[in-house]
Amino acid sequence: MLQQHPYSPNTPQQDSAELRSTGYVVGADIGGTNLRLALADSTGAVVAKWSASTIGIRDPNVVVTMVSEGVEAMLQQTSIPRNALDAIAAGAPGVTDANRGIVIATSYLMGWRDVPLRDLLETALRIPAAIDNDVNVAAIGESWAGAARESSDFAFLAIGTGIGAGIILNGQIFRGHGWTAGEVGYMLVPGSSEEPVERGKPGALEAIVGGEGIKAQWQSRWSETSTALPKSATATEIFDHALEHNPLAQQVLDHTARTLSYAIYNISLILNCPLFVLGGGVGVHPALCDATKNILAQRSARVQPRLVRSSLGSDAQLTGAIRLALDTTASRAVVSES
Amino acid sequence: MLQQHPYSPNTPQQDSAELRSTGYVVGADIGGTNLRLALADSTGAVVAKWSASTIGIRDPNVVVTMVSEGVEAMLQQTSIPRNALDAIAAGAPGVTDANRGIVIATSYLMGWRDVPLRDLLETALRIPAAIDNDVNVAAIGESWAGAARESSDFAFLAIGTGIGAGIILNGQIFRGHGWTAGEVGYMLVPGSSEEPVERGKPGALEAIVGGEGIKAQWQSRWSETSTALPKSATATEIFDHALEHNPLAQQVLDHTARTLSYAIYNISLILNCPLFVLGGGVGVHPALCDATKNILAQRSARVQPRLVRSSLGSDAQLTGAIRLALDTTASRAVVSES
Repeated sequence: MLQQHPYSPNTPQQDSAELRSTGYVVGADIGGTNLRLALADSTGAVVAKWSASTIGIRDPNVVVTMVSEGVEAMLQQTSIPRNALDAIAAGAPGVTDANRGIVIATSYLMGWRDVPLRDLLETALRIPAAIDNDVNVAAIGESWAGAARESSDFAFLAIGTGIGAGIILNGQIFRGHGWTAGEVGYMLVPGSSEEPVERGKPGALEAIVGGEGIKAQWQSRWSETSTALPKSATATEIFDHALEHNPLAQQVLDHTARTLSYAIYNISLILNCPLFVLGGGVGVHPALCDATKNILAQRSARVQPRLVRSSLGSDAQLTGAIRLALDTTASRAVVSES
Repeated sequence: MLQQHPYSPNTPQQDSAELRSTGYVVGADIGGTNLRLALADSTGAVVAKWSASTIGIRDPNVVVTMVSEGVEAMLQQTSIPRNALDAIAAGAPGVTDANRGIVIATSYLMGWRDVPLRDLLETALRIPAAIDNDVNVAAIGESWAGAARESSDFAFLAIGTGIGAGIILNGQIFRGHGWTAGEVGYMLVPGSSEEPVERGKPGALEAIVGGEGIKAQWQSRWSETSTALPKSATATEIFDHALEHNPLAQQVLDHTARTLSYAIYNISLILNCPLFVLGGGVGVHPALCDATKNILAQRSARVQPRLVRSSLGSDAQLTGAIRLALDTTASRAVVSES
């Protein structure tokens, strides 16, 4: 899986260090509903996967214990010795201080505040650990082995229940002064609410373009006579229905795509970013990407970013975590030599 | 004028090089209506200034000849010998490739396309030259000696006829993949036009918040009985009038400030940028800054950037050009040693 890629970690010595390493790394995707792990060799090739539900589990210590159990299970399954593990990296669903290894705050679901996740992982697993925001980690995945392999400047837009952007500039994750760069779910665009939003409530943009926002659009337009799809349809079901030419679903798709195109346009104005990768459960739907592309194309040629769908899909974050773990191995190898 | 500052040029050796240098530099502010020059010593202290009208002058060669004449005039005035000049730097009003020293495109007024301004200046003056976009140069000025001295992450918003942002991240100008980062005049916000804009026409944001947009707001609300100010009032006159409690002018100020606050909020979401400096002929008006601050304060505490007025005012660009010229001297000094 390892290849030439524009994403460049902070350690320029990575390639030589990787060549020296013969061990394994763990990538972790920590979410509010699932914990997913992958064991990969020093080239990044996945040799085992493991997952478990995190529904109802909020204590970070319990999550870290689950990670330990999952790692042991993958080692046993592959007969890889414990001491062949070089590093672990995890994407966490919240504002994350990647330097200090602390999850500063997660959203509504998990309620974490100032959790020293990196230290917890290092203590539990006795290997170097790295953590970052989940959307940033997914962007690293797309940059390394996904839809943005050719691009050193792009934004990964994760559209699920909410919306977040992972921004890569000059081949590096741009995290911002207070680790919150790319919080675009709160963006104000034509047609969005102008009202200030309380903490924890959906932002103006995600109230239209996020999964719940799309469902709300559908529900406000829905009538029994106009569609066979139930009022409780999900965003992806509505988009599927739009592809089958249902006018109601097409209205919802069009409004969603138009609003998303405004957000993409604004981001590209500020960052001069030539590529956007759409990911997340809602964002990967082909109907949304195509409709948004068409609307963007009608806008000025002055700003015309390219729009593509994530090629890693739900594996983007796990893949990025593997890459981050490989970088962690490399940087520690360099440190231990000096 | 030289002091400790967060803006860090590409040459980490600058400070020692500056200490070695005993020469002078020229900063140039090239605009569609005026050419302004300053001669500064190696500490950045200005020893002479010169300016001339550029109205009706569009040929870059003529502008460069004017720069030469201005430099000669300043040298004569100060009795500084020609060979004491170390470097020149200029801010140009358009998309500028700072690496190759080329003005790729200027706006409506000047109509430059792919002008090798750095080479033209070096040939004419026989000293190293550097060029950059004028708003970027102004941001460097505010960072070095103005309102952003304490901040390594901020956006300078130049609001005049149009609107542009100079973005400094981690103490470095962020210019973007295609040199157009910060073209925020085209941003789409609640209340702005959603229509695609032709090249050369004012963008959606500047159609409300730019000088002409503010005048248009005034004209559409104006009636003889409601104000003593003429229908042809300028943006700053309208803001002055708002400070004198004229209700019509206050409406225009409020709408302008509200729209500007949306743009600032969006930029701060994407960049996680804690400070905004308002500059430009319209942007420095205290009424606009105060009104925008008040509206931002009503928004979520989640994103609460600090807003200040430019402390350099119309000298921001000239000051930044001096800094850029000093950096150019430093980098050339290092190169010539190696």
